[in-house]
Amino acid sequence: MRLILASQSPARLSVLRSAGVEPVVRVSGVDEDALVASLQDPTPEETVVALSAAKAEAIEHDDECVVVGCDSMLLFEGELVGKPGTPEVARERWRRVAGKSGVLITGHTVLRVSGGKVVDRASAADSTTVRFGTPSDEELEAYIATGEPLHVAGGFTIDGLGGWFVDGIEGDHTSVIGISLPLTRRLLGQLGVSVSTLW
Amino acid sequence: MRLILASQSPARLSVLRSAGVEPVVRVSGVDEDALVASLQDPTPEETVVALSAAKAEAIEHDDECVVVGCDSMLLFEGELVGKPGTPEVARERWRRVAGKSGVLITGHTVLRVSGGKVVDRASAADSTTVRFGTPSDEELEAYIATGEPLHVAGGFTIDGLGGWFVDGIEGDHTSVIGISLPLTRRLLGQLGVSVSTLW
Repeated sequence: MRLILASQSPARLSVLRSAGVEPVVRVSGVDEDALVASLQDPTPEETVVALSAAKAEAIEHDDECVVVGCDSMLLFEGELVGKPGTPEVARERWRRVAGKSGVLITGHTVLRVSGGKVVDRASAADSTTVRFGTPSDEELEAYIATGEPLHVAGGFTIDGLGGWFVDGIEGDHTSVIGISLPLTRRLLGQLGVSVSTLW
Repeated sequence: MRLILASQSPARLSVLRSAGVEPVVRVSGVDEDALVASLQDPTPEETVVALSAAKAEAIEHDDECVVVGCDSMLLFEGELVGKPGTPEVARERWRRVAGKSGVLITGHTVLRVSGGKVVDRASAADSTTVRFGTPSDEELEAYIATGEPLHVAGGFTIDGLGGWFVDGIEGDHTSVIGISLPLTRRLLGQLGVSVSTLW
């Protein structure tokens, strides 16, 4: 059984490869802002599930395959935290979160395709608490200077340099990286697909 | 500043590389059984700290460097769980832990070497709870057939195929893989070494 990953994230690809799956990567532009604007008072869970479904549905699929779409966002003190974009925002962001916790909300959608048609689908969201450490000024400046935190949701990673500055999590670490292995396995199971058939 | 990793574990090396550090790997045989036998009624934390210290002290160091030694063990229902070794033991082990939690105890020792001498040292232990999922019979047999769980402490990994079957953790995921980035950073800090000087 072939898995199509509807994401261009190298971190997600790396998680799947480490876990024995060599996916086909296929990305189709989804207008995320328009989709979110079309939802009525969505919860964070509804938002990431809707985005993961839109991404999975938007790509071209094979005749026989499973398609996985993913989306995630960080909530800090009830507020959605995106990519910092600039060193200034990354610095301000880290000063706020240092020593505190955020919640990473992940949404996944899995489509089962047979005979060229989507015959079944499953979606779910999951939450992981992330406990941020407190980098020293020297460490924070060095981290920002690498550029790594600028272009990732929440301004941190746990699978790169940011791993030094996350003291712990409560939940699934692959969810924080971008694709939750246990959640993906659970959704595949709902569609009658055993994960070991993808290895 | 050069970091010497006193371990031959490819998983530990991979964690450090992903986090921006290219260590020198140097391994010296420590008689772990003899060392453990010499400890009087040690707690699991005392055991992993003593083993991490022995590994760090045993290798040949450079004139100016830091040396990191690591040890970890899995406790399940109060009992130490080692490497399964055989498919039969791995199967029996997984049937016992499925759907339950274990505790991964990690010990690290960091030595600061200057002018060819160990001028300072710091050690600590940390615990991470691991919540095991419940693989189906088909998934468990496929997992065991890969050989991956046979030769790792506790019979599982979270950075390989085993990641599908760990529902979550409470603590630091790099600790479960074998070298805790936040704990290593804390010990380095106690010796006056900022982790960013190792990147």
